[in-house]
Amino acid sequence: MNIGTYTYEEYVHLVKSFHGSLAPGLLIGGFMVDMAMKNLPEGEFFDAICETPACLPDAVQLLTPCTIGNGWLKVLDFGRFAVALYDKENGQGVRVFLDMKKLKRYSEANNWFLKLKPKNEQDSTLLIGQIKEAGHDLLSLQPVRVDPKSLQREKMGPVAICPACGEGYPARHGERCHSCQGGSPYL
Amino acid sequence: MNIGTYTYEEYVHLVKSFHGSLAPGLLIGGFMVDMAMKNLPEGEFFDAICETPACLPDAVQLLTPCTIGNGWLKVLDFGRFAVALYDKENGQGVRVFLDMKKLKRYSEANNWFLKLKPKNEQDSTLLIGQIKEAGHDLLSLQPVRVDPKSLQREKMGPVAICPACGEGYPARHGERCHSCQGGSPYL
Repeated sequence: MNIGTYTYEEYVHLVKSFHGSLAPGLLIGGFMVDMAMKNLPEGEFFDAICETPACLPDAVQLLTPCTIGNGWLKVLDFGRFAVALYDKENGQGVRVFLDMKKLKRYSEANNWFLKLKPKNEQDSTLLIGQIKEAGHDLLSLQPVRVDPKSLQREKMGPVAICPACGEGYPARHGERCHSCQGGSPYL
Repeated sequence: MNIGTYTYEEYVHLVKSFHGSLAPGLLIGGFMVDMAMKNLPEGEFFDAICETPACLPDAVQLLTPCTIGNGWLKVLDFGRFAVALYDKENGQGVRVFLDMKKLKRYSEANNWFLKLKPKNEQDSTLLIGQIKEAGHDLLSLQPVRVDPKSLQREKMGPVAICPACGEGYPARHGERCHSCQGGSPYL
């Protein structure tokens, strides 16, 4: 059983090194990305959408050329466990989602995702075992057409120097940078 | 010259494999994260802030345990080329930023960041060479105290099944998932 171009063991090793631990979501995520890549329409360049910021973006970053820093991965805050890969020119692509009907057949995975058991009562060996056994069998795939414009990151554009902090920032943000306009997370 | 625990050559190899190309921002970002990590206050666990989504998040993800998927990296849309690492308990940390005064001493890097030259007139060998030569010398460091609560990702919380799409989503989002409430990027 391979995940992307990796063996299962190689993928687990990568996940631990990048994400810190073999979270169940990274394992399901690995199978999701694998399934999406195997069902991509023809075309050379694709972008990715994760419909949750939890776990799934790291599976995409490990298995595809799409990362947060290169802008080819967009993360949406729907809290749905789903990933889409699509051609950035015409928007044609595939979406893979965790299928609630299929999930029911795997008791511990179902308990975990729907939070039917307190975390300290979960059997993590059983959970990981069920996800590994299921592979693509927890997932469903649908063709999608994405509106790429709705997901485009605004370009940096002309750069200005903020008169308050002295740092460079996108001139389109106004007379000061967003941090000096009150957005700063620093006390 | 090392970047994190890597040699310069190892880091360049990693960047090309993960990010797709040796973008100038990934090289400056490598030195930024390196400088921040060498100046961290005592403490075992730290989170990261990137003040721009462009390039910099990938340097953080490659050089620290913080990723988008594990939630330890937050990306802010200030468009400032700056990174902060901070203790997630008490908020104490360091911030490293691209210093406009220091940048002036490196003509091609200055031209690149402030967009003083059309992209097709840039000398990318000179640009990368100047950034490599400069290393930490383009950067300044300041102590910061972060308000960790302001950056906390909302927990998934109880999971509901959306009556429209049939998928799991955070019950706190309302009677339907955010996608079925009109946020969908799919046509």
